[in-house]
Amino acid sequence: MIENAPIDPVELREAWWLLTPEDRIQGFRLLGAEDGEEFFFDLAPRDQAELLLILTPAERRLWLRILAPDDAADVIQETDDEEDRGALLAVLDTATRKEVTALMAYEEDEAGGLMSSRFARVRADMKADEAVSYLRKQAMGAEQLETIYYVYVLDAQQRLLGIASFRELFGAPGDRLVRDIMQTDVVTIPEEMDQEAVARIFAEQDVIALPVVDDQGRMKGIVTVDDIVDVVEEEATEDIQKYGGVEALDEPYLRTDFLTLVKKRATWLAILFFGELLTANALSGYEDRFRAVAGLVLFIPLIMSTGGNSGSQASTLVIRAMTLGEVRLRDWWRVLRREFAVGLTLGALLGLIGALRVYAGPLIGLDPADQLLRFSMTVAFSVVGIVMFGSLAGSMIPLILRRVGFDPATASAPAVATFVDVVGIVIYFTVAKLFFAADMARAVIDSCLK
Amino acid sequence: MIENAPIDPVELREAWWLLTPEDRIQGFRLLGAEDGEEFFFDLAPRDQAELLLILTPAERRLWLRILAPDDAADVIQETDDEEDRGALLAVLDTATRKEVTALMAYEEDEAGGLMSSRFARVRADMKADEAVSYLRKQAMGAEQLETIYYVYVLDAQQRLLGIASFRELFGAPGDRLVRDIMQTDVVTIPEEMDQEAVARIFAEQDVIALPVVDDQGRMKGIVTVDDIVDVVEEEATEDIQKYGGVEALDEPYLRTDFLTLVKKRATWLAILFFGELLTANALSGYEDRFRAVAGLVLFIPLIMSTGGNSGSQASTLVIRAMTLGEVRLRDWWRVLRREFAVGLTLGALLGLIGALRVYAGPLIGLDPADQLLRFSMTVAFSVVGIVMFGSLAGSMIPLILRRVGFDPATASAPAVATFVDVVGIVIYFTVAKLFFAADMARAVIDSCLK
Repeated sequence: MIENAPIDPVELREAWWLLTPEDRIQGFRLLGAEDGEEFFFDLAPRDQAELLLILTPAERRLWLRILAPDDAADVIQETDDEEDRGALLAVLDTATRKEVTALMAYEEDEAGGLMSSRFARVRADMKADEAVSYLRKQAMGAEQLETIYYVYVLDAQQRLLGIASFRELFGAPGDRLVRDIMQTDVVTIPEEMDQEAVARIFAEQDVIALPVVDDQGRMKGIVTVDDIVDVVEEEATEDIQKYGGVEALDEPYLRTDFLTLVKKRATWLAILFFGELLTANALSGYEDRFRAVAGLVLFIPLIMSTGGNSGSQASTLVIRAMTLGEVRLRDWWRVLRREFAVGLTLGALLGLIGALRVYAGPLIGLDPADQLLRFSMTVAFSVVGIVMFGSLAGSMIPLILRRVGFDPATASAPAVATFVDVVGIVIYFTVAKLFFAADMARAVIDSCLK
Repeated sequence: MIENAPIDPVELREAWWLLTPEDRIQGFRLLGAEDGEEFFFDLAPRDQAELLLILTPAERRLWLRILAPDDAADVIQETDDEEDRGALLAVLDTATRKEVTALMAYEEDEAGGLMSSRFARVRADMKADEAVSYLRKQAMGAEQLETIYYVYVLDAQQRLLGIASFRELFGAPGDRLVRDIMQTDVVTIPEEMDQEAVARIFAEQDVIALPVVDDQGRMKGIVTVDDIVDVVEEEATEDIQKYGGVEALDEPYLRTDFLTLVKKRATWLAILFFGELLTANALSGYEDRFRAVAGLVLFIPLIMSTGGNSGSQASTLVIRAMTLGEVRLRDWWRVLRREFAVGLTLGALLGLIGALRVYAGPLIGLDPADQLLRFSMTVAFSVVGIVMFGSLAGSMIPLILRRVGFDPATASAPAVATFVDVVGIVIYFTVAKLFFAADMARAVIDSCLK
C-alpha cells in the first residue's frame, strides 16, 4: 500500500473486527472529520463503545456528544464494566447525563428505549394564552422539543391528565382553561411494551406521537412515529430472516462479521440437517419397494419438494397474518377449513399436470410402457396427498407453536418443509403400493426363489 | 337460522363474495350503525365501490362522505364505468370532489396517491407575525390541516421556495420576513415516486412530513409519516409473501377469497412443479448407478434439501439486503467471496455431522458393513459441494436478476431451492461414482452376463 493513502471507510469497516485496538485508533483518526463522523454513526453501539474507550478523553467527549441521548444510552449500555460506564457518562453535560441515565433503565427494544423525554408539557389550570406563551418558552429553550404538535397536560405528580393538540390550544379563546380544551380519552403506551407492539399501535392510531407512562400513570416521555418507521423495517427484516431459516442478524448483511454469519446460519442448518436425516430412515423402510420398481425413485424429489413448497406457502401466509394480528388462535378452525379446500384444489391441479407429464413421457427409458399409466396415477395421487398435507401442516404448526408458548416464526418455511419431506415419503410409497402391488409381490417371490 | 338473529360482521365478511347483490344490501343494512361503519371501513376499496353502487343515493352519500378524501379516491378509482364514477363523485361536496378528482390522477402506490393537499402555506414576503395569524386562520378553517408542524412557503405559481418549522416562525421576531426564516435546502418527493422509495426517504430523514412536487417544482401536497408506517408494513408483507413463494395477496389472509388465494398460490406452485419435474429427468440419467448401489437412494432427500436450505438462507439474506439498499450490484464480488467462505465452512460442518451419523449407523439394514465408510464419505463430500453451490446460487441469482432488470424477489427461496435440487442430483451421483466405481462396474458386467 502507498504511504499516506487515504483510508477507504468501507474497507476499514470490513476489516474492523480483525484489527488490534491500536490499528483501530490509527485507522479511525486517518478518516478525517467528515468520513469519520459517518463511520462513527454507522458503527454498531458495541463497536462505538469499544472505540470510545480506547480514544483519549478529549476525543471521547467530542464523539459521544454528537450522539442523540437515546443513541448515547445504547452505547453506554454496551459496556459491562462499571468504571467504563463512569468514564463515558462523565464526558456528558449534566442535563444530557440525567436523560441518558433515565433511558438506560430500559431495554433497547422496549417503549422506554425508544422514547424522548423532550415533550411539551402544560398544567391543567393554565389559560390557553398562558399555555401558548409557556409553550413558546419551552420551544425556544436550549433543549429542542421533539414535537410541539401535541401538548401534554400533567399534574404535580407528573401524571398524565390529558392531551391537547397545539392547534386546539392555539385556536381556543385566550382565557379558556387547558382543562376544558384537553382530551382525556388518551391512548398511552406502558414503558415496558415491546417495540413491535408499539409499532402495531401506531399503525392503528395514525398519530405522530404517543405518550409513554409508567404503571402509576406518570408520564415518562413520548415515542414519535419517525422512530417507528425504523422499528417496523427492523422487525420486518428479522421476520424475513427467520422465515428464510436464519437467526436474525443484528447488523446489515455486509457488515456482519464472518463468524457471526456462520453461527447464525449453522444453527438452523444443522437442526434441519438432523431432521432431514430422518428421510433416510423413512426411505430405508421402503427399500424393498423401490428395489422392486426402480422407476419409483425418479419421483421422490418431485413429491417431496412439492410438499415442501406448499407447506412454505401456507406457513409464510399464516405466520405473517399472525404477526399482523389478522389471524388469532381462535381462528384455527377457519384456517384449517381454508387450507383443506385450498390444498385439495392445488393438489388436484398439480396432480393432473404431473399425471399428464409422466404419461406423455419420454421420461423413463427403462420401464415398460405398460407401467406408465400406473406411474402417472401414483404421482397424481401422491401429489394430491402431499400438497394437502403440506398446506395443513404449514398452517397449523405455527398456530400450535403459539398455543404452547413459542414464537410461531420458529416454524420457518424450511422447518415445515423438512417435516413435510419425511411424511411425504410415507405418503408416496403408500400410494405406490396400491398401484404396484403385483410387481412388489413378484419381487419378493423372486428373491425367495434365488 | 333463527329469524331476525343479529348478523355477525365477521361471518358476513367471509360469505360476502358468495352473496347476491340483494343479499349484500340486506346483510349490510342489518348490521346497524356501529357494526356497519366498522364493516364498511374494513371492506377493500373494490368491495366498497360495488356496495355503494347498489345502495340508494341517500345511503351512498352517507357512506362515501365518511371516507377521507384519499380513501374516497381509491374507491372511485375501482369503478371502471364512467357513469358509475359520475354517480359516486356527484354525492361529494364541491371542495372534497375537487380534491378527490386531483388525487384520482395518481396510482394508489405512488407518492401522489399517499399525499394530502391540506398543508399549511404562507408567502415569502409575509412577516412572521402575519404568517402566524394567517396560519391560525388556516388551522381554524373548515378543512382540517394535516399538520401545522411544517409551513410551506410558495410563490404565486405554487412553486415551493422553502420550509419553515412552525416553531421557527413562532419564535422569530414578529417583523422578520418569512423569506429570512425559511430553510431553502429542502428534500422533496416527486409526485410519481413509488411508495417504497418514499418510505426509504422517510427512514433516512427522520421527519414527520415531506412535500410532494411535480416536475415544474410546484407543490402538490404533503406525505405524512403516519401513512408511511402503513406503507412499510404493507411492503414488508408483500416481500415476505414473495419469499414464501406466493404472489403478494392484496388483502389480509382470512379476507382473501378462496379463488384469489388459489390463484396466487397456484402460479408459483405450478412453475416450481415443472422445475422439479427436471429432477426426475436428472435422476433417470443415473438409474444404472442407484440400481447398482440401492443404498444411494436413501440420501437423495437429505442432499437435496440441505442444498435447498442453504440456498434459501443465502437468497433471503441477499434479497432483503438489496431491498434495504445495503447490497448493490457493484457489491457482487464481496458477496461472492463471503458466500464462498461461508458455504465452505457450513458445508464442512454439516458434511462432518453427516459422515459421523451415517458411519455410526444403524441406518442401512441392507448394505454390508464394508460399504458404510464409503457411504459416509459420499454423503460428506456431496454435502460440502451442495451447500457451497446452494450458498453461491442463492446469493448470485438475485443479483443477476436485478442486473437483467427483474425483481430480485422473483428468486424466492423455493425457486432457488428447486434449481439447487436439480444440480444437487448431479453433484451427488458424481461424488458417488468416485466411491462406488467398482460396485457400479460390477453391476454393468452382471447385467451383460445375464
